[in-house]
Amino acid sequence: MQQMAERQEARTTHLFADYKKSRGNYLVDADGNTLLDVFCQISSMPIGYNHPKLIEAARSDEWVSALINRPALGIAPDVSWPSILNEVFMSVAPKGLQQVTTLMCGSCANEVAFKAAFMRYQSQRRGGTDVTISPEDLDSCMHNQPPGSPQLSILSFEGSFHGRLFASLSCTRSKALHKVDIPAFPWPAAPWPKLKYPLSEYTGENRAEEDRCIARVEELMDTWSHPVAGVIVEPIQAEGGDNAATPYFFQRLRDITQKRGVTFIVDEVQTGGGPTGKFWTHEHWNLSSPPDIVTFSKKLQAAGFYHNIDMRPSQGYRNFNTWLGDPVRALQLRTIRDVIKSERLLENVNITGDYLMHGLQQLSNRFPSLLLHPRGQGTFIAFDLPSSIQRDALIHSMRQRGIQSSGCGSVSIRLRPMLIFQPKHATIYLEELEETLKEMTA
Amino acid sequence: MQQMAERQEARTTHLFADYKKSRGNYLVDADGNTLLDVFCQISSMPIGYNHPKLIEAARSDEWVSALINRPALGIAPDVSWPSILNEVFMSVAPKGLQQVTTLMCGSCANEVAFKAAFMRYQSQRRGGTDVTISPEDLDSCMHNQPPGSPQLSILSFEGSFHGRLFASLSCTRSKALHKVDIPAFPWPAAPWPKLKYPLSEYTGENRAEEDRCIARVEELMDTWSHPVAGVIVEPIQAEGGDNAATPYFFQRLRDITQKRGVTFIVDEVQTGGGPTGKFWTHEHWNLSSPPDIVTFSKKLQAAGFYHNIDMRPSQGYRNFNTWLGDPVRALQLRTIRDVIKSERLLENVNITGDYLMHGLQQLSNRFPSLLLHPRGQGTFIAFDLPSSIQRDALIHSMRQRGIQSSGCGSVSIRLRPMLIFQPKHATIYLEELEETLKEMTA
Repeated sequence: MQQMAERQEARTTHLFADYKKSRGNYLVDADGNTLLDVFCQISSMPIGYNHPKLIEAARSDEWVSALINRPALGIAPDVSWPSILNEVFMSVAPKGLQQVTTLMCGSCANEVAFKAAFMRYQSQRRGGTDVTISPEDLDSCMHNQPPGSPQLSILSFEGSFHGRLFASLSCTRSKALHKVDIPAFPWPAAPWPKLKYPLSEYTGENRAEEDRCIARVEELMDTWSHPVAGVIVEPIQAEGGDNAATPYFFQRLRDITQKRGVTFIVDEVQTGGGPTGKFWTHEHWNLSSPPDIVTFSKKLQAAGFYHNIDMRPSQGYRNFNTWLGDPVRALQLRTIRDVIKSERLLENVNITGDYLMHGLQQLSNRFPSLLLHPRGQGTFIAFDLPSSIQRDALIHSMRQRGIQSSGCGSVSIRLRPMLIFQPKHATIYLEELEETLKEMTA
Repeated sequence: MQQMAERQEARTTHLFADYKKSRGNYLVDADGNTLLDVFCQISSMPIGYNHPKLIEAARSDEWVSALINRPALGIAPDVSWPSILNEVFMSVAPKGLQQVTTLMCGSCANEVAFKAAFMRYQSQRRGGTDVTISPEDLDSCMHNQPPGSPQLSILSFEGSFHGRLFASLSCTRSKALHKVDIPAFPWPAAPWPKLKYPLSEYTGENRAEEDRCIARVEELMDTWSHPVAGVIVEPIQAEGGDNAATPYFFQRLRDITQKRGVTFIVDEVQTGGGPTGKFWTHEHWNLSSPPDIVTFSKKLQAAGFYHNIDMRPSQGYRNFNTWLGDPVRALQLRTIRDVIKSERLLENVNITGDYLMHGLQQLSNRFPSLLLHPRGQGTFIAFDLPSSIQRDALIHSMRQRGIQSSGCGSVSIRLRPMLIFQPKHATIYLEELEETLKEMTA
């Protein structure tokens, strides 16, 4: 730790891992301790440490070439790239979306999606992508001034997390410590519905609450100083505390954005790739039309966003960068997808999720003043403690018991196990949690 | 091409490559044509296609584990990570910089560096990193409002390119098509010195021109509405047209920023890693103190920025993200560094650069109305054509003759060969260039 601190930020380091020795759901640390991992590199490991199919694939000529001959994908892709787009990216594409823009990480995916939204908005104002951009626009943008650098906005929600670069951070509203001291765009945030649980008991109240938030979205769209070109939303606010909304909320959001020609961006960076029991969480919603953009990273290992051809700028090179993604991560996604299919991992997520949620509900009944509001979908599950001190104490105590977990929001524990997390692993988690809760009440 | 266009932007695609068949300086395309590559994936390939040392290393257990067990480096690095920081990143660190923040690409490197500059600036205003951040700052930043989201700026230069995300694009001033329709921060740009060549004949004029630009930098720092927290500069403006300045210019810039406590950021994304004959181009300048930040990506394959501990935020998690770089790219940098050393590639760059520049000067003498202003350092060389139409025609004609090259600015050809580009390769380039110039004058 000391050696690391001399060269790099180390105050955030939980532990040093021995990845060569780690297997499946189990993380081995530098001292040889084995931990059951339910945090999984901030929800980014999909099919377990050292999966044999990944080891085998990584040694192939195809992977080696993709890794060491890294192309500028926008100008000189490998001859195999069009078929990778078709056979890998399209095989897991959200229904209704035919195009993919590949990038390097989640923040970039969101920001390049914002750029696409702004270009589309301005193009619509001009009357189409074939209308020439005015000299005034071209001149003023070189000075960062309107009209060429337009004063438009992306609307997000209170409690959201969309990344930490400047535009994505302007949309992020989770914690002040993520935002303070960093210049931000004056973009709006709408309230996020505060649902009451269990949902079945509060149908009416929750519907009213979601209507209130949607009304505020429309009001912001009508009145905000910087016209709203896009809306970005997480299916479940993860970093912000695992806050859910019902399909009705997202259906209304889609209908409003559709009606107004505002780009509807679903940020599936944390929810995408299976943890809620479908490959994409927005597939649970039954929308009237697909989102305009679905962004991804983390569990897919490859990053970028899906869209249709209407999100393509008027000319090439307008939304471009050097690498535009990483072919070896596309190959990794292919293996991940194959394993999800052959090991029936979405089915496993649903089974394990039900089992885990049932166990947490039982513990919540037994420790009603400690384990609060178990909630989630698939294995994308969270619960609360009464205070952040107790939450942090629980994480610490669980780590001493061999469970690598983490928090979100101010008082929540979020479970982000891999897709290979089975009921037998959930049993271990629940047993250790029970012991910890007993200790905390003793 | 058609298959690709159905799934992804293809209007920028020059060609499809067969990377498995490509070797060294030679790119093999999908039809089996062999091209001498002097553009090298937008200047990002360092030691050639399919270098045997990279193939060997990529098959090792170490690389395979790093590739398939991708950690969240900020919380659970591999036990080997501290020594990778020391033995890989520090072995090529710019003199005087002891810390490295690892990231995924050049745009991110610049933007996370900006965040560090803003945090340092605000911390200095507060009176140090141990001074508590006020509730007013913490509250207002959640609404993207000052004082918590401060109205500060990064100063860049006309003609510069620093990336295409929102803050980096606010600093980029190369082409309107990169910027138009994208909201920007109201940040200032100073003029870039327009030097007259040959430098030895215009010493006085060039000194006066650089003084004029420096005076404007100081004036902007004194008067700009959004106080300047950092200055970002490329050693040679690449995308903007391969525009150089003299060491004197950078020395003055360093001294001004030092005096004012403004973070001095040298963007070595394109110049870093050896193409100008030293590992870092700013090592040519003989600065009075090292830059505060040096950003890198491209040829190093790993990305991020070097700095000292004064650029570390007051608390962990303030400048953070999920992956914080990619360990397998750090291992790749280790092999690249080893090859640069064992094959004496910096020496090769200087020898080949001299040879190439000599050849271009001769061609410029023979074709004085076509080949203008050959200039550069090492093999980081450019020349101009009289018009962008002639420039584009030359690139096209050279590609038909088996040379993969590209332009920059409006009328320039930039040569970005790999570090393994030898005089014998330069000879081929010069011969084909001569034939093309003959054709163009015929």
